[in-house]
Amino acid sequence: MLSKAHPRYESLVLRDKIVKASKEGLLADSAMIAHGRGEAFDYLLGEKTTIPAKRAMYVTVALMILSKNPVISVNGNTTALAIDEIIEFAKAVDAKIEINLFYRTDKRVDKLTQLYKDHGYPEILGSNDDDIMYINEIKNPRASASKTGIYSADTILVPLEDGDRAEILSKSGKNIITIDLNPLSRTSKMSDVSIVDNVVRAIPFMTKIADDLKSQDKELLKGMIKDFDNKTNLEESLNSFKIKEDIQ
Amino acid sequence: MLSKAHPRYESLVLRDKIVKASKEGLLADSAMIAHGRGEAFDYLLGEKTTIPAKRAMYVTVALMILSKNPVISVNGNTTALAIDEIIEFAKAVDAKIEINLFYRTDKRVDKLTQLYKDHGYPEILGSNDDDIMYINEIKNPRASASKTGIYSADTILVPLEDGDRAEILSKSGKNIITIDLNPLSRTSKMSDVSIVDNVVRAIPFMTKIADDLKSQDKELLKGMIKDFDNKTNLEESLNSFKIKEDIQ
Repeated sequence: MLSKAHPRYESLVLRDKIVKASKEGLLADSAMIAHGRGEAFDYLLGEKTTIPAKRAMYVTVALMILSKNPVISVNGNTTALAIDEIIEFAKAVDAKIEINLFYRTDKRVDKLTQLYKDHGYPEILGSNDDDIMYINEIKNPRASASKTGIYSADTILVPLEDGDRAEILSKSGKNIITIDLNPLSRTSKMSDVSIVDNVVRAIPFMTKIADDLKSQDKELLKGMIKDFDNKTNLEESLNSFKIKEDIQ
Repeated sequence: MLSKAHPRYESLVLRDKIVKASKEGLLADSAMIAHGRGEAFDYLLGEKTTIPAKRAMYVTVALMILSKNPVISVNGNTTALAIDEIIEFAKAVDAKIEINLFYRTDKRVDKLTQLYKDHGYPEILGSNDDDIMYINEIKNPRASASKTGIYSADTILVPLEDGDRAEILSKSGKNIITIDLNPLSRTSKMSDVSIVDNVVRAIPFMTKIADDLKSQDKELLKGMIKDFDNKTNLEESLNSFKIKEDIQ
C-alpha cells in the first residue's frame, strides 16, 4: 500500500495505474517507457499546471466549442490514466472520442472498446476496422483514422501522441491540439496548440472551464484563438521547468 | 527493424533492450517507467557524456583502484543495458559484482545469475539468500547486502539506484558512487560521487581510463579524490541540461 504521506504519492498512483494497464494488455510494449519520460518532465515542472498551460487550455476549449466536428484521440496510456475524465470532457464540449493506436492490434482495440463501454461510453469510434480511412490518402498505419471521426474532423485533441503521427496530422489542415509534457518534442512543436501539462490535470481543468466558455460570446472565443501564438506559449512553458535551479 | 538513420537510433536500441528484458522477466514491474525517466533526462543532456561526468568518472576509477573491496551493485536495468561492459569494468578495477534488487524475487535473481554465467561471469554475488546480511543491522529489504560483497565493501558503485536504498547506503560510512541521469534525484544528492550520465556510455569510458590510472602514482589518485566536490560537480552537470534553450 502506498502512503499518502509519500512526497511523490500522486505520481506513484499514476505509475500504478500504468503498471496495472500494462498487465491487462491495454498498452503497447514501450508505453511504460513513454510514461516514464512523462514522469521526468512532470517532475521538472514541479507537477503543477503552469499559467502557459492554462492559456493553451482556454484556446483549446474555445477551438473545440467552435468546431463542427471536434474529436479526442485516445490511446492506451491516456485511457489508463484518465478514462472517466476524458468521457466527461468529451460530453462537455460535444466532441467524439476515437481509439487511435500507434501500434494497433485487434486485441488492444477490443479491450479498450470494452473498457469505454464499461465506463458508460459505448459510442467510441475507431473500434471497427471497416471504418478506417487514410489521412491525405497516405497508405501508412500512421495515417489511419476513423471515417466519421478524425478523418472528417476539423479539430483533433491528441494527448500523448507519437511524433511521426503528429507530423502527418499537422499536414492535414485540421486544428491539431496536443497534451505533451515535453515542450521540445516533435509533437509539441508541430501542433497548433500545445498544452505542456499532465493529462490527469489538464483534462479536468478543461471540463471545468468549458461550462463558462460555452456561455460566452463566440466573438470572444474567436479572439482568444486569434491572439494565441503557440511558439511563444511553448517558450513560456519551457521557462517553467526547474532544471537550472540550484541543488540544495 | 530500426533504421540507423533515425535521429534517435541509439536511444531506440536501448529501449528495445529494455522491452526485451522485461518480456524475459528480468525487470521489476515499473523498471520500464524508470528507463523512460532516464531517456527524458538523457534527451535533455543531448545524449552526450559531459565534462563534469568525466571528472566524476576519474574520481570513481581512482576510488575503486584504491579501495580494498570495491563492489558494483547491479539490477535488472543495468544488466539489460550493459552486462558485458559491467563485467569488463569489474575486471579492469578488480571489483566484485553483486545482484541487488530493490524488488527482490527468487525468480529474477535466478534469471540474472544465469545471465551472468552465460556471459562468462559465474562468480556473481547476491544470488544466494543464505549470504544476505543487513547494513547497520537495519532489518529492511532495502538494507540487504551480500556478506562478502556490499556488506563488507568500502566502496560501492550503484548505477540506477532507488532513493530509499541510496539513503541507507549513504549512512553506512562506505564510499557511495552512483550513475544517475537525474542530477536532482535523492540518489544523486546523497552519493559521494554522482556520475550524471547514461550507464551505456559511462561504464566503457571508465574501463578505458582504468588502465592508465592503475599505472599512476597512488598519491595522484588520492589527490584527485581529495579535490573533488560532488555538490559543485552536480551543479555543473545540471548546467549541461538544455531545457532552457530556445525552441527552434
